Amino acid sequence: MGKKEDTKGITVKKSENMPEWYFEVVQKADLADYSPVKGFMIIKPDAYTIWESIQKYFNKVLDKHKVRNAYFPLLIPESFFKRESKHAEGFAPELAYIEKKNDDGERLAIRPTSETIIYDSYSKWIRSWRDLPMIMNQWCNVLRWEVSQTKPFLRSREFLWQEGHGVFETEKEAIGDMRLMMDEYKKMMEKLLAIPVLIGEKSEAEKFPGAVATMTMEALMPDGKALQCGTSHNLGQGFAKTFDVKFTNRSEKESFAWQTSWGISTRLIGATIMLHGDDKGLVLPPSISKNKVVIIPILFEDSKKQIIEAANTICKTLDSFGAIVDDREEYKPGYKFNEWELKGIPIRIEIGPRDLEKNIAILVRRDTGEKQTVEIKNIKSEVKKLLNQIQTNLFEKAKKNLYHNIIEVDNLKELKKQIKNGKIVKCYMVNDKKIEAQLKEATGGANSRIIETSKKEGNCIQSGKKTKTRAYIARSY
Amino acid sequence: MGKKEDTKGITVKKSENMPEWYFEVVQKADLADYSPVKGFMIIKPDAYTIWESIQKYFNKVLDKHKVRNAYFPLLIPESFFKRESKHAEGFAPELAYIEKKNDDGERLAIRPTSETIIYDSYSKWIRSWRDLPMIMNQWCNVLRWEVSQTKPFLRSREFLWQEGHGVFETEKEAIGDMRLMMDEYKKMMEKLLAIPVLIGEKSEAEKFPGAVATMTMEALMPDGKALQCGTSHNLGQGFAKTFDVKFTNRSEKESFAWQTSWGISTRLIGATIMLHGDDKGLVLPPSISKNKVVIIPILFEDSKKQIIEAANTICKTLDSFGAIVDDREEYKPGYKFNEWELKGIPIRIEIGPRDLEKNIAILVRRDTGEKQTVEIKNIKSEVKKLLNQIQTNLFEKAKKNLYHNIIEVDNLKELKKQIKNGKIVKCYMVNDKKIEAQLKEATGGANSRIIETSKKEGNCIQSGKKTKTRAYIARSY
Repeated sequence: MGKKEDTKGITVKKSENMPEWYFEVVQKADLADYSPVKGFMIIKPDAYTIWESIQKYFNKVLDKHKVRNAYFPLLIPESFFKRESKHAEGFAPELAYIEKKNDDGERLAIRPTSETIIYDSYSKWIRSWRDLPMIMNQWCNVLRWEVSQTKPFLRSREFLWQEGHGVFETEKEAIGDMRLMMDEYKKMMEKLLAIPVLIGEKSEAEKFPGAVATMTMEALMPDGKALQCGTSHNLGQGFAKTFDVKFTNRSEKESFAWQTSWGISTRLIGATIMLHGDDKGLVLPPSISKNKVVIIPILFEDSKKQIIEAANTICKTLDSFGAIVDDREEYKPGYKFNEWELKGIPIRIEIGPRDLEKNIAILVRRDTGEKQTVEIKNIKSEVKKLLNQIQTNLFEKAKKNLYHNIIEVDNLKELKKQIKNGKIVKCYMVNDKKIEAQLKEATGGANSRIIETSKKEGNCIQSGKKTKTRAYIARSY
Repeated sequence: MGKKEDTKGITVKKSENMPEWYFEVVQKADLADYSPVKGFMIIKPDAYTIWESIQKYFNKVLDKHKVRNAYFPLLIPESFFKRESKHAEGFAPELAYIEKKNDDGERLAIRPTSETIIYDSYSKWIRSWRDLPMIMNQWCNVLRWEVSQTKPFLRSREFLWQEGHGVFETEKEAIGDMRLMMDEYKKMMEKLLAIPVLIGEKSEAEKFPGAVATMTMEALMPDGKALQCGTSHNLGQGFAKTFDVKFTNRSEKESFAWQTSWGISTRLIGATIMLHGDDKGLVLPPSISKNKVVIIPILFEDSKKQIIEAANTICKTLDSFGAIVDDREEYKPGYKFNEWELKGIPIRIEIGPRDLEKNIAILVRRDTGEKQTVEIKNIKSEVKKLLNQIQTNLFEKAKKNLYHNIIEVDNLKELKKQIKNGKIVKCYMVNDKKIEAQLKEATGGANSRIIETSKKEGNCIQSGKKTKTRAYIARSY
């Protein structure tokens, strides 16, 4: 699949020009392609399979917490967006309306997120505290008509995501759900995608339109920009009041429900590519690599048959790792090595006639390039061990990068300098929309990724005012 | 979940008023709800889980045939639809354009199907015969602005489906793929959904806009209407020529590719409900029932604790069948029986103090209502056996219904009569759009569901002309 020319390798160094490197990897490793519709992407099979890994993992999490999958309409009536004023304000510029109208003549927009249409249904379905908690999730496409530059996976007008929507009897339960799901997201990032994240609350300026509080997880990309990887919102009773999500409580009184919503998207594919990739191309964490092993028989005319046979036998042994054999005769081994490195397959196995004589094979790690010789009879256990090591190594490397790049500062000049250096800067900042807007202007676009409340007071880096709020400031995607 | 009032049971007999019965089952068994957007449906969790079963089953089929999942944009430029003239004509009335435009000012429509946008990409990705076959599939939502009356699952403006798109070197391979996928669909219908289908080709009047040939599978609903459950198209080189899907063939010459597309949708959920359901509500084939067993402990004050404990122990034993215990104390057993019957759970297990004394439990089949006593120690193997019997029984019953309702006729008067009787009528019919339109008019809306070529000639039931084409005529959804 793909053009033969595409496999000639990455021409840009990741450390020298990350944006260009990213576009090359995305295209040459067959992950995405541009669409004839500006700002939209085509997710190719090698990337879609990562999304399927995420879905499979997360569906188990949903099942564990008794969250049920459902599907709500793509189109939402205009009036729904207007009911919750902050929500309306937040999404209005990005809505794409269709030319056809609802039966009553009302305009219809493609969903940018589904709080409004889901809560309209919840208001009909929920009667009593016995119906609660009600938590549903949907895997779907959403559309936000971005005007800024789009980037495959990281920012596009349409993307795929899951959106979970919880309804609870009490505020405490809603806050608990917001935190629980953020905790599950973090676990998934670490275990599945080998991506370390900081989690915490969003500032007033950065929280979800309509939420009381938003929790976020932020990863640090190699170019020093933060990437928001998922959010979880405590919606309080705001939507419940505008969409009439009421229930008869345990004291037989009518009460507004407490709500949450939380989501992750195909942006995580972009995070994985950008964080783990190197100058040779994609580097896949084994846990999301459908084919964790590629076996390349080294072919000579006189021993070809035996070597291919041996490769196929090894392949069968490694079936549970999705092993494949590349026995194409029109390409030389070196070409194949490059191609599979570009595609990020975690382990390459080489086997030639001399190896076979000695009953050995060579394992090559994609992440470090290290080679090791193994006896064929031990190959399954060695591969298993090595895959674990690769998974751990990718995570530990990324974790070091994250924590080595967090720096505390106490003045604006130093902040600006460190932001330019690609750091996440920790400092005191008053949690206020205007002050954060000023800070953003002063730093040329950096903003708070997470805020936390400190025990001690300090001076706001922008306004000088006393505050207990500390922020992690960074440029971001 | 759901309103308590909803569980009061179905008030209409299936045999007396099928449409009304269907709406009641859909609503009361918590399968779907109406949307504030006319013609759109909300797929509730108990129905969405059926779709997930279909996805899980079919993803394995796709994997076996090396078909890879991908994702293409929701929006398609207007000019794409116009390139293939029959395709354009077929879909134009149902397209929903958005108000925003592509960067070049072109109108954009929400996909009704994705041949055009996928083949635009294929034309860029395919260079040589070595790239073929290229077969991709996507699970997505599509939108067709129907003007006729919509029905949950069966006909709605938005639905979920999979669409597979194959590109081949030769016509023979394309025809083979069309047939192979139809064969896989049929197997899935039979094994998973317990729905027997007729498969065959569509007439000129009924085939897919832009296809050389369309294969279909048709199920017979209890009201005598046929339901098209999935189609597979041989697209020939028509789209290849308009979208420039070319490759260098084995003789180093440039050649247009041969293409296929095939799809099934959430309509299959509707087929399952309608075909197997009865006057008590939904009847789920065990293979798609997430919870195949519900255990209802018969509670008395003095033995409550032991009985609930026994029910939970049985539940653990039956964990692989997704068994659940309904130990709610606010409802009586009879109420619970009705509720789980309405929801279609294949087996109910009742256990009370007298049963426990004798180490037995009662198994009740949802499909026939038959009861049997089993020793608790044998319960797992008995449940397994019974689930197989239920699955087989549902299929066999439906199969009898299908084949008993196919009738051969040789004159229009008899045809009309049998159509009114809810039969599928087999007769000679010239495969011609005009003649079929006349027949449709004459029968008040019946049309050919499948055509086949007979060895012998006969007289067309409508035109009287000699023909070897025989058609299965029926009313349809």
